[in-house]
Amino acid sequence: MDHNIQSKFEVFLNMNRKIKSYYEAIGLLDWDLATGAPRKGVDTRSETIGMLATEAFKISISDEMKELITYLTNEDVFVQLQEQDQRLVEDLKLEMDRMQSVPPDKFQAFSVLAPKSQVQWESAKESGDFSAFEPYLSQIVEMKREFIDYYGVKDTRYDTLLDMFEPDLTVAKLDEVFSRLKARLVPLQEKIKNSVHKPDTSFLDQSFDIKKQEEFSRYLLGEMGYDFEAGRLDESVHPFATGLNPGDVRITTHYYEKDVASAVFSSLHEGGHALYEQNIDPKLAGTLLAEGTSMGIHESQSRLWENMIGRSLPFWERYYPVLQSYFPEQLKDVSAESFYRAINKVESSLIRIEADELTYNLHIIIRYEIEKMLFNENLPVSDLPAVWNEKYKQYLGVTPPHDGLGVLQDVHWSSGDFGYFASYSLGNMYAAQIVNTMRKEMPEFDRYLREGNLSPIKEWLTEKVYQYGKSRKPSELILAITGEELNPDYLADYLESKYKEIYSL
Amino acid sequence: MDHNIQSKFEVFLNMNRKIKSYYEAIGLLDWDLATGAPRKGVDTRSETIGMLATEAFKISISDEMKELITYLTNEDVFVQLQEQDQRLVEDLKLEMDRMQSVPPDKFQAFSVLAPKSQVQWESAKESGDFSAFEPYLSQIVEMKREFIDYYGVKDTRYDTLLDMFEPDLTVAKLDEVFSRLKARLVPLQEKIKNSVHKPDTSFLDQSFDIKKQEEFSRYLLGEMGYDFEAGRLDESVHPFATGLNPGDVRITTHYYEKDVASAVFSSLHEGGHALYEQNIDPKLAGTLLAEGTSMGIHESQSRLWENMIGRSLPFWERYYPVLQSYFPEQLKDVSAESFYRAINKVESSLIRIEADELTYNLHIIIRYEIEKMLFNENLPVSDLPAVWNEKYKQYLGVTPPHDGLGVLQDVHWSSGDFGYFASYSLGNMYAAQIVNTMRKEMPEFDRYLREGNLSPIKEWLTEKVYQYGKSRKPSELILAITGEELNPDYLADYLESKYKEIYSL
Repeated sequence: MDHNIQSKFEVFLNMNRKIKSYYEAIGLLDWDLATGAPRKGVDTRSETIGMLATEAFKISISDEMKELITYLTNEDVFVQLQEQDQRLVEDLKLEMDRMQSVPPDKFQAFSVLAPKSQVQWESAKESGDFSAFEPYLSQIVEMKREFIDYYGVKDTRYDTLLDMFEPDLTVAKLDEVFSRLKARLVPLQEKIKNSVHKPDTSFLDQSFDIKKQEEFSRYLLGEMGYDFEAGRLDESVHPFATGLNPGDVRITTHYYEKDVASAVFSSLHEGGHALYEQNIDPKLAGTLLAEGTSMGIHESQSRLWENMIGRSLPFWERYYPVLQSYFPEQLKDVSAESFYRAINKVESSLIRIEADELTYNLHIIIRYEIEKMLFNENLPVSDLPAVWNEKYKQYLGVTPPHDGLGVLQDVHWSSGDFGYFASYSLGNMYAAQIVNTMRKEMPEFDRYLREGNLSPIKEWLTEKVYQYGKSRKPSELILAITGEELNPDYLADYLESKYKEIYSL
Repeated sequence: MDHNIQSKFEVFLNMNRKIKSYYEAIGLLDWDLATGAPRKGVDTRSETIGMLATEAFKISISDEMKELITYLTNEDVFVQLQEQDQRLVEDLKLEMDRMQSVPPDKFQAFSVLAPKSQVQWESAKESGDFSAFEPYLSQIVEMKREFIDYYGVKDTRYDTLLDMFEPDLTVAKLDEVFSRLKARLVPLQEKIKNSVHKPDTSFLDQSFDIKKQEEFSRYLLGEMGYDFEAGRLDESVHPFATGLNPGDVRITTHYYEKDVASAVFSSLHEGGHALYEQNIDPKLAGTLLAEGTSMGIHESQSRLWENMIGRSLPFWERYYPVLQSYFPEQLKDVSAESFYRAINKVESSLIRIEADELTYNLHIIIRYEIEKMLFNENLPVSDLPAVWNEKYKQYLGVTPPHDGLGVLQDVHWSSGDFGYFASYSLGNMYAAQIVNTMRKEMPEFDRYLREGNLSPIKEWLTEKVYQYGKSRKPSELILAITGEELNPDYLADYLESKYKEIYSL
């Protein structure tokens, strides 16, 4: 690489590092707000976070950054960069172009509207009154529709939004994938509904000491290979994982005295996210490639540990006796098999975040179809509750008593995050597809679980997924690992075979 | 105020707010490092802190800041500012002038040297080998001597350094104050040494459950009026207080199973610092005046709560039964009076941070005299161990077995913090002088302690000290409160009367 390119690229890298440093500070300030910052400091804190975010943003759209990117994407220069560096430059260019495409006054107006809209959503959800939120949501949707024009319409208008969370994913592809998935999951769900072999979950409804729950979460995370010297576990209202830097990837969970399963599965879930970020190649540290490659792939790693591993029988053959030793009184008369059945109970319900592994995907498909109608068919916002309730009736057979348990249940739309929901089901599909390959390449998979020997699994995932961070696109990654593109059949196969046995279908 | 001034001052205030926001972020990143950040994230974290500190620094020496300060300190403009705003402008100007007076390459060289010197100090302290540290300390002292020329020599060269921690304090004043203090404390200490009425401290050397110690610390902080909705208590190796913003002033303590007194007094001490910052006038929030006015005054507030209140008999008449109820087994046969005597034991020792309320000041006076010799008499660094040991023999009657327990014990010099030590004794003197006035204005002082009615004391301190933050200089503050300037007799009176009774002198 010629010396001039080298030195310009160094400057570019330093700007990257600076943005990452701002993100680290913001990440810690946010983590602290969620885990125990004093109430009276919150307002000033929020201003501080805003200031830091603005500074990071200013760097990414600075004239200096523009010049550097223009220089580095010049064909003669670009070909001299290493592949990974090319990816970094492309990635920043994409983000910069996107941010610059929207006129600053529109962007500003949206930044002012979004938090207000969130506040309105919160109270509307509480009272179950969609009409109080509707004017705000209409404005949000209107502005998003405008933004699509600025960003540039892809195959369809909704494609533009999807692409922001899952690069290169299209409506055409998702339509096909989701319709295949729906075609298998809806009947499966109906069979389960009609089965008389319902798992008994009554034993879960006892008191479980919170201190012991915490110890068990720490134990499980240690078993997964979560590195406590490069992270920590705390409690927050909503569990999350946050990678501050490669040596500091924190997770939170939430303990419910009356529900031992909740913390177990949120720890496994967030632990999965964290394993991903703890094991990104150190070479990528300090660049914007040192993060998950997409929402969908990130979610695949959390769901793989939470569901494919954490809700499997071999896993609990090994770990259920340990759980029993933490709660001998509560669990002495419950077998591993009964526990396994209980944590895999399927039930059509109204609320996405409480849904089981099967019906969860139907909640997502409903949102996907509705979002597509909003942006590709100009569905009026006022029609949302009716459309919502109709689809819930059709796919899940349930009807919300009011909109607070229906169309108002999720925060995402209130701040304009359309195109995000699909990631959750993509995560499930990617996870099943990846595990299918892992089982072929590692026939001892179930035995490893039964033996509590989880490190080969973590190592396999490091080699195939974790190490690459954002340096490979999701579509490249899934193709390289499994030899084919996203295929929903693996998830459907997995769910069918699992529930067939549990529900004796 | 004319409109142009108004708008320029607004810009100036916004730059202030931005610097404060950086400080808040840095403060949290530091707090996190001390309270539980994972080991493997420390290196990247340190870089992030460095980046944010640099950004804050850049604002304070930016051309824009220079122009604003030049404009605002122009006499015609300055007189139109409110008093508090004038103070803010003066304060920033002082800091800017100081930073700009040193050529950037010198400043840079010092920033590189200081951390290396600290690392050397640490290992030299460990091995007790001054010669390993000497070349680094010589360079640090040499650079500080140069810096004094850049900053501008005040009455004497050492005055320049003193002034950085305690504005307007002079060598002439401190010489007088410390010689009066020494003249009374050295003989007092000797009398105590010869007294046969030594307090029995053996009962302190038992096991005290750490969880209970923590609960008791929380209880005491609540009693002091520390607002847990505007702060939190955590554990760290070295206790500290940090004001992130006025609604978030955190403290840490350290629990020793074998020493119940340590956490009690460090909680009271850090609680005192925190009360100061929690009760600064909200009008000052977001400006650089929203902090303690000097190291000395800050320390007076911690020592006032730790010693004048926390080591008094009336205080323990109220709170000792509570402490007993936390540790009934360990303390059932120990009276409040015995406890009071034990926590006030005086003993000449080698280590400053373990010293009692009386001899502590002699440790400080020794350091003050030595620093003065270094900068005003060009004492060679190689002579430090000999001078140190001689003064310890003379004032405290003890001789370190090696330099690790002598001249190498404190971190301050390794990073060039000369002029800082005096603050600790200033704190004691200010505290005694302030309490003397408080007792006159509030004759119920002892009764309030006996009743555990601490809020009038907190309110009095808020009115006289806390609310002003940095908007009044230490000398103005002490004069306004007590009607006279710093006077060491109050501390000597207080100590004499206290120990006369304890040691039956």
